[in-house]
Amino acid sequence: MDEARTTLDRLLAAAGSPLDAAAVDALLPGVAASHRQLGEPDAWMRLIVERPDAELRQALAARLDRVLGCAGGGLSAGSAATAERLEALRGELDRRGLDGFVVPRADVHQGEFVPPHAQRLAWLTGFSGSAGTAVVLREHAAIFVDGRYTVQARREVDTERIAVCYSGETTPADWIAEKLAGGRLGCDPWLHTRRGVERLQTAAGRARGELVATEGNPLDAVWPDQPAAPVSAVVPHALAHAGESSRDKRARIGEAIAKAGADAAVLTLPDSIAWLLNVRASDIEHTPVPLSFAVVEADGGVRWYLDDRKLPAATREGLDDVVTPRPVESLEADVAALAEGGTRLLLDPATAPARLGDAIRAAGGEPVRGSDPVRLPKACKNATELAGSRAAHERDGAALMRFLAWLAREAPERAGGEAPVTEIEAAEALTALRKGDPAFRDLGFATISAAGEHGAIVHYRVGPASNRALGVGELYLCDSGGQYPDGTTDVTRTIAVDQPTEAQKRRYTRVLKGHIALATAVFPEGTTGHQLDPFARRPLWAAGLDYAHGTGHGVGSYLGVHEGPQVISKRASETALKPGMVCSNEPGHYLEGADGIRIETLVAVTEVEVPGADQRMLGFETLTLAPYCRSLIDPDLLTADEIAWIDAYHTRVRETLTPALDDRTAAWLAEETAGLGQ
Amino acid sequence: MDEARTTLDRLLAAAGSPLDAAAVDALLPGVAASHRQLGEPDAWMRLIVERPDAELRQALAARLDRVLGCAGGGLSAGSAATAERLEALRGELDRRGLDGFVVPRADVHQGEFVPPHAQRLAWLTGFSGSAGTAVVLREHAAIFVDGRYTVQARREVDTERIAVCYSGETTPADWIAEKLAGGRLGCDPWLHTRRGVERLQTAAGRARGELVATEGNPLDAVWPDQPAAPVSAVVPHALAHAGESSRDKRARIGEAIAKAGADAAVLTLPDSIAWLLNVRASDIEHTPVPLSFAVVEADGGVRWYLDDRKLPAATREGLDDVVTPRPVESLEADVAALAEGGTRLLLDPATAPARLGDAIRAAGGEPVRGSDPVRLPKACKNATELAGSRAAHERDGAALMRFLAWLAREAPERAGGEAPVTEIEAAEALTALRKGDPAFRDLGFATISAAGEHGAIVHYRVGPASNRALGVGELYLCDSGGQYPDGTTDVTRTIAVDQPTEAQKRRYTRVLKGHIALATAVFPEGTTGHQLDPFARRPLWAAGLDYAHGTGHGVGSYLGVHEGPQVISKRASETALKPGMVCSNEPGHYLEGADGIRIETLVAVTEVEVPGADQRMLGFETLTLAPYCRSLIDPDLLTADEIAWIDAYHTRVRETLTPALDDRTAAWLAEETAGLGQ
Repeated sequence: MDEARTTLDRLLAAAGSPLDAAAVDALLPGVAASHRQLGEPDAWMRLIVERPDAELRQALAARLDRVLGCAGGGLSAGSAATAERLEALRGELDRRGLDGFVVPRADVHQGEFVPPHAQRLAWLTGFSGSAGTAVVLREHAAIFVDGRYTVQARREVDTERIAVCYSGETTPADWIAEKLAGGRLGCDPWLHTRRGVERLQTAAGRARGELVATEGNPLDAVWPDQPAAPVSAVVPHALAHAGESSRDKRARIGEAIAKAGADAAVLTLPDSIAWLLNVRASDIEHTPVPLSFAVVEADGGVRWYLDDRKLPAATREGLDDVVTPRPVESLEADVAALAEGGTRLLLDPATAPARLGDAIRAAGGEPVRGSDPVRLPKACKNATELAGSRAAHERDGAALMRFLAWLAREAPERAGGEAPVTEIEAAEALTALRKGDPAFRDLGFATISAAGEHGAIVHYRVGPASNRALGVGELYLCDSGGQYPDGTTDVTRTIAVDQPTEAQKRRYTRVLKGHIALATAVFPEGTTGHQLDPFARRPLWAAGLDYAHGTGHGVGSYLGVHEGPQVISKRASETALKPGMVCSNEPGHYLEGADGIRIETLVAVTEVEVPGADQRMLGFETLTLAPYCRSLIDPDLLTADEIAWIDAYHTRVRETLTPALDDRTAAWLAEETAGLGQ
Repeated sequence: MDEARTTLDRLLAAAGSPLDAAAVDALLPGVAASHRQLGEPDAWMRLIVERPDAELRQALAARLDRVLGCAGGGLSAGSAATAERLEALRGELDRRGLDGFVVPRADVHQGEFVPPHAQRLAWLTGFSGSAGTAVVLREHAAIFVDGRYTVQARREVDTERIAVCYSGETTPADWIAEKLAGGRLGCDPWLHTRRGVERLQTAAGRARGELVATEGNPLDAVWPDQPAAPVSAVVPHALAHAGESSRDKRARIGEAIAKAGADAAVLTLPDSIAWLLNVRASDIEHTPVPLSFAVVEADGGVRWYLDDRKLPAATREGLDDVVTPRPVESLEADVAALAEGGTRLLLDPATAPARLGDAIRAAGGEPVRGSDPVRLPKACKNATELAGSRAAHERDGAALMRFLAWLAREAPERAGGEAPVTEIEAAEALTALRKGDPAFRDLGFATISAAGEHGAIVHYRVGPASNRALGVGELYLCDSGGQYPDGTTDVTRTIAVDQPTEAQKRRYTRVLKGHIALATAVFPEGTTGHQLDPFARRPLWAAGLDYAHGTGHGVGSYLGVHEGPQVISKRASETALKPGMVCSNEPGHYLEGADGIRIETLVAVTEVEVPGADQRMLGFETLTLAPYCRSLIDPDLLTADEIAWIDAYHTRVRETLTPALDDRTAAWLAEETAGLGQ
């Protein structure tokens, strides 16, 4: 036993922790695999003792550092290790009598952010993007990525061994149909939805082969240093932020479950569960949730499937009696037992692992198909959440103003010189300013800090290799957001470094016109975001232009920066916008190799009083507070109404934010928001 | 044998007809049940001889008159006969061991216009509307109609015996689930689609009963004077109008069938078949098609199921060798035989009678589910059809100008006097002016001629009982259209009789703004009408207003005035607009009890050249030529762009139509289309 461990044992005992150093050591791989939020990186220590003193903090930090020093999990090896890993996987498939295996990017929660131990696609192929699927057969292997990721995948993947396919041209299904040749294709039914499995079945069938659901993931068997599942501290989400008790939420959801003709619902989305139980955590980056499953009964009782070491004593004590933590490993057996006992289980076929539906059917039941009953209520923010969002946007806006004012001074002055402002410097400056707010917890996503032609890469992520200076006459696009206990922000502003060209101004102003057309829309209840989306595109369409992404996504309340069910998009959706929903409004335009323009603001759906209206009308309240780039606006392309709207918004931004700003920033903001009419 | 018959025999022999008087007499009930087009009411005589002389025409006309004199089919009895008919039907159900029966409004083609022998719902209940379903049980009977028809149904139906239900509140399914109580519910599987049958099955199941597909329709067994199936002359649709030979069309459709994974397609929509074979007829009113079915093989061969007495010798001779007429009665057996022989048959589950799918399955096959392969190609008009439509719109526009100019003179002057212009007079005046065009064949639908509060009834149909005068200060809404061999028109204009109120002007101008917003839309390929629909509503939404109907429907080329697959509507649709599609653009606003405003123009989807566009862009070409009502336009509510657009359109209307107009009409049009800018 090392000396540090003895010291730690002593400190833990003194602090009254129920854990000794051995228990802490057992916990640390999970902590290492979890996300330490920027604003509260030591929150994990609550798993050990509620308030550690300075000495204990230091000891714990040192202990974690040691684990972090060794634990890479092989994820950063890139394509270097591909040959070896492919061979190991093929050996394992051989042992299982399989001719192939499908490796999706998804984890068991079909989430956007995936914990290290579930980054199987990245480990196997080196590909680090947020969407993709690999298929490994005896002789062939391929990875399928969408248009955002073809270039990146070709750079990251060992293309000698794994073909990179653009999924818009070759789908995994087509490739399987062509290459499987009668074989047995394996898939892990925990990582695919029912529909996903059906697609693979059809593809295998076309190749006169069959799809085989595996027990356990064969890849896990050959990943020697696979990281631990994340363990972070689950903390209560205060009623002052949530605005509704978990008990009340569970009563509402229970009614919805009964109305859907079910006795209980199986929840597989961590953010649904975090909302329902009013808890948060940091198992994964950017979305402050504990990874977990739950079975919610119509009477409001909850079996909550998670590693219970994530529950600090204070959190555990705060749980309602009817909320029972259960080991994740028990989920499948519990669900099967419920089904066997005649409990009708609601399961969302769009998001639940196929395995759960299979388990219900194997037990003689039939899942009640329906949407996750939490998604829609969660999307409709209550008055407390909306007030929180407004407050968070004021503080976030003040930080953003300091950043934009700094950038307006520094970027043109240093551009072309020896130490120009770079994408990384800018992103770090903005994060540092956000961290000045004690309520700041984390970024909602990796900041997109994109100068010049990088702006045209819609999901650009700066790194040391790509880092680029902000040049004179270029556009700089910054898409960022913060996680605060009272709200989640997401804002994009595009600015011109020094004077823009007339062509840049025309394109920016068209994007702005679309942004305003959506912001000012008034529409009857029942209208979907799919119907409103063209308002944002019309000014671009008129010039033969468009953008290849959605106009708006839902945003959580100190939850995911992307949440459903609503979208404002070309993609068909039958979800009507409802009061309280928070969405982004983010049209853009991208010129490959030149620049990107995007203007993004969060808006809340709100009831609008229209004199003489013969029905209930809805509209948007703008939450984000940040001016549009004055030098990029061409007032000649704007109508009088549009100019008046911009001026009114700019006045609101100035009047709201100025009290929180230093003089230099306030002066810049005053100039930037002066009336366009002048 | 009567004397007239002897004479007719002689005349027929002299004219070289293959038919004698007895054969003509056998034909006449079918002719009586068919529609005699307004522009060519004697076309049916071609069934007997290609060009009858005056004496033969007179003899034939007299012969038909005699049949028409006796043949009512009991359809005009209204609700008077309900008790007797219900009792007869219940007796028949009893004999078949059924506890109930579903009577839809649909015929075997799921068509909008239904021939007399298939008007079972009207015969049984007296209800004459275009949509509804009755369900007759042992003790109860009910008819279910949508919001358009509740008032009319209560007036027409014997509500003592048949409950009138608003389908928005009580669906047939709910009612059946409540009332069937374990019984056997019959339905005629020729009159329901697969999905319709499934809905009824679910409903019967909820009542612990069962749905039974009947052999033959029990109602037909108790309808003593049921009319004959219509027999009208099938005539070629000239290549000069169609723009593509049937052979070329069949080659295209054959490819689509093969691509869908089928060997042949079963077509059940008469307009699909008429388009494919380049033929027209007048079996039903307003849509110039022969009622028929077809099986089209991937190699272009067609079995065409229709009463072959509809084929005059000239038409029969003009058919391609591979088009084989077959009796309608053979359809089911032929389909079953094909399925049994392994032919994979494409069937559109949205429109085909459930019976055909059942027949395929009973023969050991499985229908290939897919859209009717003709619908989309038919919707995309070729250059010849578009040129024809433009020509038809010029002539139709000239007739409409004469009507509007006449109305502008007569209506205010006679309003309030002893002989005001009435809705019927106006509708008849417009039809008479259209008939002045020798190419005019028929109305595309019953003219909606609606004064004052009648304008708020979206599907108002004037009759002697409802006929209303056009009053001073009222709005008059006229929605009408013509069928011409070169095109189908559909136009709505709303005018003010004398001076309108400011409130009327404001509402009209908002409708017009929406109409212009849609007309001027430019959008990328792949955009649906569902996405564009909000452009037309936004100016109304801004005032808290809306309209409860779609903004646009597809229009055929001398075919149905309503055709799919495209719509411009709140209803979700994934059909992208494609070049050549003709749609209506018809926003409106309705104030119950006061007036209705609708502005409707036909537009063709067309490729638009946008300088600098980075993709192919589409827009609309306006086909309809008729000014908007000058006195109803409030220029203060219009933007400069909107005024310029109206002025340009009005100039085009004036310059195009004036050469075809009398001086008085031309003078009125000049005033009505003078620049708004002045």
